[in-house]
Amino acid sequence: MNWLDEIRWDAQGLVPVIAQEQSSGDVLMFAWMNREALAKTAETGRAVYYSRSRGKLWPKGEESGHVQTVHEIRMDCDNDVVLLKVTQLGHEPGIACHTGRHSCFFQKFEQGAWVSVEPVLKDPATIYK
Amino acid sequence: MNWLDEIRWDAQGLVPVIAQEQSSGDVLMFAWMNREALAKTAETGRAVYYSRSRGKLWPKGEESGHVQTVHEIRMDCDNDVVLLKVTQLGHEPGIACHTGRHSCFFQKFEQGAWVSVEPVLKDPATIYK
Repeated sequence: MNWLDEIRWDAQGLVPVIAQEQSSGDVLMFAWMNREALAKTAETGRAVYYSRSRGKLWPKGEESGHVQTVHEIRMDCDNDVVLLKVTQLGHEPGIACHTGRHSCFFQKFEQGAWVSVEPVLKDPATIYK
Repeated sequence: MNWLDEIRWDAQGLVPVIAQEQSSGDVLMFAWMNREALAKTAETGRAVYYSRSRGKLWPKGEESGHVQTVHEIRMDCDNDVVLLKVTQLGHEPGIACHTGRHSCFFQKFEQGAWVSVEPVLKDPATIYK
């Protein structure tokens, strides 16, 4: 049985993917993959997601240069979620978020409100020209 | 504006949730919440998910005793994914997975196949009586 067939793809043929920074353990982002994206990720060792809004493959960093090297691919107990251990390249420290922040999870719930608690490391206007 | 209204709930009124162990950084599990589940999680400081298969709230650990204390609630840049920093209680080391393993992400992609690489810490038959 092909390893890709063991994944329980959803009705849209997608699987949710969590990208975690290998060195720090930080959860960097959450995205989706289709079968082709996961196959390319495994083949190339670079994260390739599927953009639901654009309806096509999204090689992480294709515009920003902020590519992700993939060290490990994990699957959960229900075979319907993927976890990647990555190194976030292109900036030091790594920028995974399109807002220019290290991680997409920069909004923290504090006393009944969402507060941005992580700095913008690089102006998005200079990332996406 | 209510903080719960800032979340972009999907068509089913749900949001994907990643639970990460605060002490180790390990990604323990992935689940879903509806509005009521997230409100209860914030109010009680214990993780309450929404079970899509059972169609109802799922207070983590209600059967297993493996409850999660929630230290932080984070939201991503698109306001459509939640990340919890938790302590996994009920066993030492913590068991988040229904298979009796520490983390649900115990299957690793190795040379073209999925391999279970994490030990079962407790027999599920003795967890769910």
